[in-house]
Amino acid sequence: MTNPVELILKKRDGGRLSKGELEELVQGYLAGRVAEYQMSAWLMAALLRGLDDGETVALTQAMLKSGRTLALRSVRAPKIDKHSTGGVGDKVSLCLAPLVAACDVAVPMIAGRGLGHTGGTLDKLEAIPGYRVRLDAASFERVLRTAGASIIGQSKDIAPADRRLYALRDVTGTVESVPLIVASILSKKLATGSDGLVLDVKAGRGAFMGTPARARELARALVRTARNAGLETTALVTDMSAPLGRTIGNALETREAIDVLRGEGPSDTRELTLVLGAEMLVLAGRVRSRAAGRALLERALASGAGLERFARMVRGHGGDARVVEKTELLPRARVRVPLPAPRSGILAGIDAWELGWVSVALGAGRMRAEDTVDPGAGIELCHAVGERVTRGEPLAFLCASKRSLVEHELARAAAAFRIGSRATHPRLVLERING
Amino acid sequence: MTNPVELILKKRDGGRLSKGELEELVQGYLAGRVAEYQMSAWLMAALLRGLDDGETVALTQAMLKSGRTLALRSVRAPKIDKHSTGGVGDKVSLCLAPLVAACDVAVPMIAGRGLGHTGGTLDKLEAIPGYRVRLDAASFERVLRTAGASIIGQSKDIAPADRRLYALRDVTGTVESVPLIVASILSKKLATGSDGLVLDVKAGRGAFMGTPARARELARALVRTARNAGLETTALVTDMSAPLGRTIGNALETREAIDVLRGEGPSDTRELTLVLGAEMLVLAGRVRSRAAGRALLERALASGAGLERFARMVRGHGGDARVVEKTELLPRARVRVPLPAPRSGILAGIDAWELGWVSVALGAGRMRAEDTVDPGAGIELCHAVGERVTRGEPLAFLCASKRSLVEHELARAAAAFRIGSRATHPRLVLERING
Repeated sequence: MTNPVELILKKRDGGRLSKGELEELVQGYLAGRVAEYQMSAWLMAALLRGLDDGETVALTQAMLKSGRTLALRSVRAPKIDKHSTGGVGDKVSLCLAPLVAACDVAVPMIAGRGLGHTGGTLDKLEAIPGYRVRLDAASFERVLRTAGASIIGQSKDIAPADRRLYALRDVTGTVESVPLIVASILSKKLATGSDGLVLDVKAGRGAFMGTPARARELARALVRTARNAGLETTALVTDMSAPLGRTIGNALETREAIDVLRGEGPSDTRELTLVLGAEMLVLAGRVRSRAAGRALLERALASGAGLERFARMVRGHGGDARVVEKTELLPRARVRVPLPAPRSGILAGIDAWELGWVSVALGAGRMRAEDTVDPGAGIELCHAVGERVTRGEPLAFLCASKRSLVEHELARAAAAFRIGSRATHPRLVLERING
Repeated sequence: MTNPVELILKKRDGGRLSKGELEELVQGYLAGRVAEYQMSAWLMAALLRGLDDGETVALTQAMLKSGRTLALRSVRAPKIDKHSTGGVGDKVSLCLAPLVAACDVAVPMIAGRGLGHTGGTLDKLEAIPGYRVRLDAASFERVLRTAGASIIGQSKDIAPADRRLYALRDVTGTVESVPLIVASILSKKLATGSDGLVLDVKAGRGAFMGTPARARELARALVRTARNAGLETTALVTDMSAPLGRTIGNALETREAIDVLRGEGPSDTRELTLVLGAEMLVLAGRVRSRAAGRALLERALASGAGLERFARMVRGHGGDARVVEKTELLPRARVRVPLPAPRSGILAGIDAWELGWVSVALGAGRMRAEDTVDPGAGIELCHAVGERVTRGEPLAFLCASKRSLVEHELARAAAAFRIGSRATHPRLVLERING
């Protein structure tokens, strides 16, 4: 065992750690030979000095190897995963996974919970009565065979080094490092043994990467590292300046995802689902072009095959699949208060960051890790950016369990809407990165 | 209380911490509100991003304030302290403190133990039978009044933040930062409330700062910070490429210090004592010029007044003061093995770094903090750099408790001596920094 201090000094002085050294670091950390205070010093040195591509792959694989990988041998279909770096109103995984499954591509997805101002796929699924996000490996595989898609939480034995490192980074100011973010995301994604991965890297006010340039840097590093680790990957940098779709909050977003699978729902949520799905079908080798993939997905929407797969997935997770027909079975907030437009004009912008935090405050997210979420809480938006609004008519409805929670957030929510004389529509997909 | 993560992020991103923030950091660390892993991340960020002069003073004072300061009100003489950044064979404090005291300047000194390849003043003093380096504040003050000089160890209540931070830096790769080194040294030096400080900043193979440029950088930062904290300070950058004097090891060095006080001893040890002492007398206002200071010190050597003060100091610390007359009362190693010169020529160089580590291996230093030192162990050098040596005649004697210890080190010790056809004498004082 190398002295942990030598590994710190090497990175501190701008050196490059070998694959073996990174494995010693990660394994030593899990085994207690590398103390928390040594790992945090190393993480800070890594954040400030950087990791090169080889180190990023080696760190990713060392974190992957800290836990088990799922073979999923009985799943015959090609397996394609999707990951989003997190945004506000991003419920795409919920409709995308079953829709792609309906096109004979398996989607084994390990998802997360809400983090900061962003929502989490697991919290949204748990809004469905009975849905269990914790399945053992055998049940996960069975749902994948029968429904073609399964979305579960990260179990204790998947990349345990990532779980511990993530918690440490959170309290030591070492989150915002592209190579550390890459290793954290990909160590989990590699554990499902997928054949391909489509990444949705969000850019803008509602994303963790505020500028398109930072999002592009992360997207490129993710694609390079995934490829180097043997995982075919395409990344799209997509706009997250305004919330996606018309809902923010768990049950509200699940309803919107079901709406999309019914062939309804807001055009941006539907569009992003189709764009990402087409990339997945191309990676799976199901189609030759994105256009052909899109056509296949549109047919699966029109036929109801996607909705049917969603119902199978929900049933496989112990959830009440009747929600696909009766969305009123989803939890609803007791209080629903309109937010009136202060004047007439064109809705020029909606600040996703601010509304993300308003939604957390209404109960849809967590202030601390141990908090529970209120599945019915959140925000219903009445207009998309670019639409005309009329003074006194609602811009949105704020939903919560108590009126006091809403009243406390009204001013902040109102300030998130910008009304002007014209709007510039940002493109949904800012860039496509494919090797 | 500011969130510790904010203080980490601020330094990580190159920001400047306020005096209040640095106090919160240090106090929070001692109180457990700032975790070890947070402090180590902050230290790494500070090492890589740096601290400016204002931050360095504020950190120094926050560390000072973490403990008590000594008023030493009953000591009427001006109080001047001296600090060396550590070298091999550097026994100067032992002869310097009583010699300066003999010139009516009090020397309240908090010294350290051996660190790495360097010796420690406390270990050398403890070679004197009975000498206790731990005195309570009242006894310290009494010895200062009666002997004019007292050298003690850092007690638990002096700069406790420094003790904890030093231990943390040692295991997290955050030692080699000029501002952190400065704050560590000065927080202890400020605690004795001295009127002035003379710094001996060592440069060369046997020093922690290998190059004169790095030593100069540290010396300047020390002088600037001490001045900003209200302490008059002069620094000398001195050569530590070869060991100082003719002995390495605790009792051996104590004997050499006594020799100097007797008017004997090697010329370099004597010279450095006079040069540093003259600076102390100038800072104390006892003399107008360094030349006058030197003359005063030479008189105190010649009259035996310095030796007499040494005896008083030893007695004040419970030690056997007869050693000043009978140095054979000091511990001696059981085994004393000559190291013969492999060929005749001029002694062109002695590698202080290597001989420092040989001395540690012989028992004079510690491999781990919990080790005890062998007071008799060490190295006696037979020649200074520049002298002629004859093949087969001893270059040095290696002293230890067991022959096997010596035999293990013979080859390494031999490799530390360079014999050539001529020698370049480095100057003893490379630079003087005084504001």
